[in-house]
Amino acid sequence: MEFTAEMIAAFIGGEIVGNKEAKVWSMGKIEEGKEGEISFLSNPKYEKYIYDSGASIVIVNKSFEPERPVRPTMIKVDNAYECFAKLLDLYVANLPRKKGVSKMAAIAEGVQLDEDAYVGEFSVISEGVKLGKKVSIYPQVYIGDNVTIGDDVILYPGVKIYKDCVIGNRVIIHSGTVVGADGFGFAPVGDTYKKIPQVGNVIIEDDVEIGANTCVDRATMGSTIIHKGVKLDNLVQIAHNVTVGDNTVIAAEAGIAGSTHIGKNCMFGGQSATTGHLHIGDRVVIASRGAVMSDIEDNTSWMGAPALPTVRARRAHIIYSKLPEIYKTIADLEKKVEELSKK
Amino acid sequence: MEFTAEMIAAFIGGEIVGNKEAKVWSMGKIEEGKEGEISFLSNPKYEKYIYDSGASIVIVNKSFEPERPVRPTMIKVDNAYECFAKLLDLYVANLPRKKGVSKMAAIAEGVQLDEDAYVGEFSVISEGVKLGKKVSIYPQVYIGDNVTIGDDVILYPGVKIYKDCVIGNRVIIHSGTVVGADGFGFAPVGDTYKKIPQVGNVIIEDDVEIGANTCVDRATMGSTIIHKGVKLDNLVQIAHNVTVGDNTVIAAEAGIAGSTHIGKNCMFGGQSATTGHLHIGDRVVIASRGAVMSDIEDNTSWMGAPALPTVRARRAHIIYSKLPEIYKTIADLEKKVEELSKK
Amino acid sequence: MEFTAEMIAAFIGGEIVGNKEAKVWSMGKIEEGKEGEISFLSNPKYEKYIYDSGASIVIVNKSFEPERPVRPTMIKVDNAYECFAKLLDLYVANLPRKKGVSKMAAIAEGVQLDEDAYVGEFSVISEGVKLGKKVSIYPQVYIGDNVTIGDDVILYPGVKIYKDCVIGNRVIIHSGTVVGADGFGFAPVGDTYKKIPQVGNVIIEDDVEIGANTCVDRATMGSTIIHKGVKLDNLVQIAHNVTVGDNTVIAAEAGIAGSTHIGKNCMFGGQSATTGHLHIGDRVVIASRGAVMSDIEDNTSWMGAPALPTVRARRAHIIYSKLPEIYKTIADLEKKVEELSKK
Repeated sequence: MEFTAEMIAAFIGGEIVGNKEAKVWSMGKIEEGKEGEISFLSNPKYEKYIYDSGASIVIVNKSFEPERPVRPTMIKVDNAYECFAKLLDLYVANLPRKKGVSKMAAIAEGVQLDEDAYVGEFSVISEGVKLGKKVSIYPQVYIGDNVTIGDDVILYPGVKIYKDCVIGNRVIIHSGTVVGADGFGFAPVGDTYKKIPQVGNVIIEDDVEIGANTCVDRATMGSTIIHKGVKLDNLVQIAHNVTVGDNTVIAAEAGIAGSTHIGKNCMFGGQSATTGHLHIGDRVVIASRGAVMSDIEDNTSWMGAPALPTVRARRAHIIYSKLPEIYKTIADLEKKVEELSKK
Repeated sequence: MEFTAEMIAAFIGGEIVGNKEAKVWSMGKIEEGKEGEISFLSNPKYEKYIYDSGASIVIVNKSFEPERPVRPTMIKVDNAYECFAKLLDLYVANLPRKKGVSKMAAIAEGVQLDEDAYVGEFSVISEGVKLGKKVSIYPQVYIGDNVTIGDDVILYPGVKIYKDCVIGNRVIIHSGTVVGADGFGFAPVGDTYKKIPQVGNVIIEDDVEIGANTCVDRATMGSTIIHKGVKLDNLVQIAHNVTVGDNTVIAAEAGIAGSTHIGKNCMFGGQSATTGHLHIGDRVVIASRGAVMSDIEDNTSWMGAPALPTVRARRAHIIYSKLPEIYKTIADLEKKVEELSKK
Repeated sequence: MEFTAEMIAAFIGGEIVGNKEAKVWSMGKIEEGKEGEISFLSNPKYEKYIYDSGASIVIVNKSFEPERPVRPTMIKVDNAYECFAKLLDLYVANLPRKKGVSKMAAIAEGVQLDEDAYVGEFSVISEGVKLGKKVSIYPQVYIGDNVTIGDDVILYPGVKIYKDCVIGNRVIIHSGTVVGADGFGFAPVGDTYKKIPQVGNVIIEDDVEIGANTCVDRATMGSTIIHKGVKLDNLVQIAHNVTVGDNTVIAAEAGIAGSTHIGKNCMFGGQSATTGHLHIGDRVVIASRGAVMSDIEDNTSWMGAPALPTVRARRAHIIYSKLPEIYKTIADLEKKVEELSKK
């Protein structure tokens, strides 16, 4: 797809400054602009890049007044960032979608595929699987027995979903992620351990996105539940019987231990963690590397390991970093008090 | 499979209170009980759920005396939890096992498969591989050259085992786990690094279970060894030349650095770690997020980063959380001593 | 391949002590030596193992003077470690390389494969992919549309590379690693989140090695770049728009958040991390578990969470571990000052 400045200006309602025939077929950052790319200038910090940017077109705010000649064609609009985001959405919406069912996929008898389904090579769709409309199942995906998959789901190459799990509508799961492996449950028997069967499943509700190489374990009994709108990053661990509330966001390498319940609209930073069997409220913020070891109320913010309320954690850390000086101060005090006592 | 209360009561030796014709075909938690499910009540904390539980049958202790009518059929036994666990084992033992060798698997010439083997679609079994009896190799598994696999092993979809590794009997490995990738060994050569060839292997002994997306690297020379009965959770890193002693349990996202030797019956919490070349004794407990940086004796318990003995770590952390107040106390003391000195 | 002591001594220029007909076909560690293995003795700490080592041949320094008879044949050289490394390289260089293109791979029309290419079973090479010379693509690998792969690249089983990514020459990527999954970018819209399209790619330059189950996310726009000579261990997270400078080494389970730029020849320890949008200089060392939360200058060394300069971090931690005693000291001081004040 190739667009001229004129076509884009008409679409986003902007005014062209420069060559209205300038052509673009890709999107880029203003500081790395290449020919054929459209970019935007919103943050004044990046203004210095526009004058000689290699981009062919740059969308700018009406208020932008260049200090010297600008190389790319400009399109002036009320809100450059919003217009660019609109174009980005349009660009992505128009990318060709993979289609068709590969003859090199292994699809169990009886599985219904609608005409818009994409199933890539070497994917396995097992017995009893129910697929929604317009699913995109990339190559090398595994879908176990009796799994249910909603409409418009995208499973990237190599996703593995164990039997009996349920995936909602518009769910996106990236490569290498494993949904429904056995929870880590063992009962001690003398010095050894006996496996506790994990007969539950995983339920992933609508509009969830899960990154790459993440693990969501099946429940011992009942369900591990990722509620609607949740976003999980890469390499996240969600243990058995965890529930994650609507629209909660969990960043990379975080780990939620077994049977912990996380509320709605929480944010967990990278490498953060909780121990098991906790109740975390709604709108809770856990900083990166935060380690939660007790229940947490709604609308609170935590940091550190073990986690403290953020303000306290920040202050404690600042003082921690001064411990060498504080240690000396205390030693000095001891000496002085000793001397005073002698007098 | 469908069972009546009468059949179950006969099997576990219990007494029915309620409808002896009640039928179940699944197992569930009492607080989420659904029709057709059997559940149990052991912890009095959950007693409140039994009265209106949707479960069809609940196993209870003989000592349980309901305060009001109970909706589900009850089966009274001496130990409700044990009886339920017995049923759970029975249930799982009776789940149909996958069987047969897919024509869409790539199996090297000369590889012997016994009649009970299961090999799923798009799995690769390379030259020189030796398979035990009754192996379950799910789809998309890779088994490299000259790998040895014991009896009753289960490899879930997408497991990758590099060449020359040895897997014992009754080992279970979940999806996405990689056994035998190269250890992270590089020798500095000026500003760059030269790869140190990793010519060893990985040995996984009997009765080990490994979670999803875990990595066990091959040894530089010799073997990385996961001894019998070890349980590794998801996303665990086991570096080259590590040995993990019998029945040690390592929770999710933990990392054991190169050449560290871990003793028997240890427990490592989630996201815990050790540096390399350490000797960790037997029956050592490392708390979640603990970071071990020196050798550790048998029968000790550690916490924190760097790890301290648990009792000391707990006390140090409590005081840490009070650092803002302590800092103020010290400042006050300084002032007072200053004043006293002046007098 | 089987070699005699005589052949090896001739190759490395050494002097044989013992049976010049001793045969070896494998390499091992002196403390675990088995028949048919060649080993080396360099570190005097291991001298005790040589006398009864099961190895058939041991390379030793000329300066080594045994205290009693040595069982294996010895080859004396100027530098035992270097000679052994030379043999190791030779051994690995002579291992048979996989060859040929499997008929069970799915290769898009128009993809050019040179005669030295290896493509294993159930791998997918999509439309527009450009492959260099002598690539080794193991089974079950996925290479998305328009990916470029350099010469002598090794992709181990199950590697997934999303569309449009660029892989340089002599790059090695281990099993389960995902290159080019979407960056974790979402814009809040009321209580929910809207996906920000990730239209950039990943560029991996020459001589990079990446371990197993690591994730390198594609850029939102532009490129996530792993510069030449970088070594990433297992289970590492590299977020969108990160750049990692030449020859930087990042150990297992580390995580680099979005848009952070890391300089050349840095070292990141296991489970270390940075927050996003940082600039880390050249030759920076971050200890294991270090958590970097601000920009860092060249040639500095950091430890702890949040990271402090290493010397300060070490001292602060030592004092931290004494906090229980310090707390008591302060309480004692308070009491004494109180008493002094009263007088």
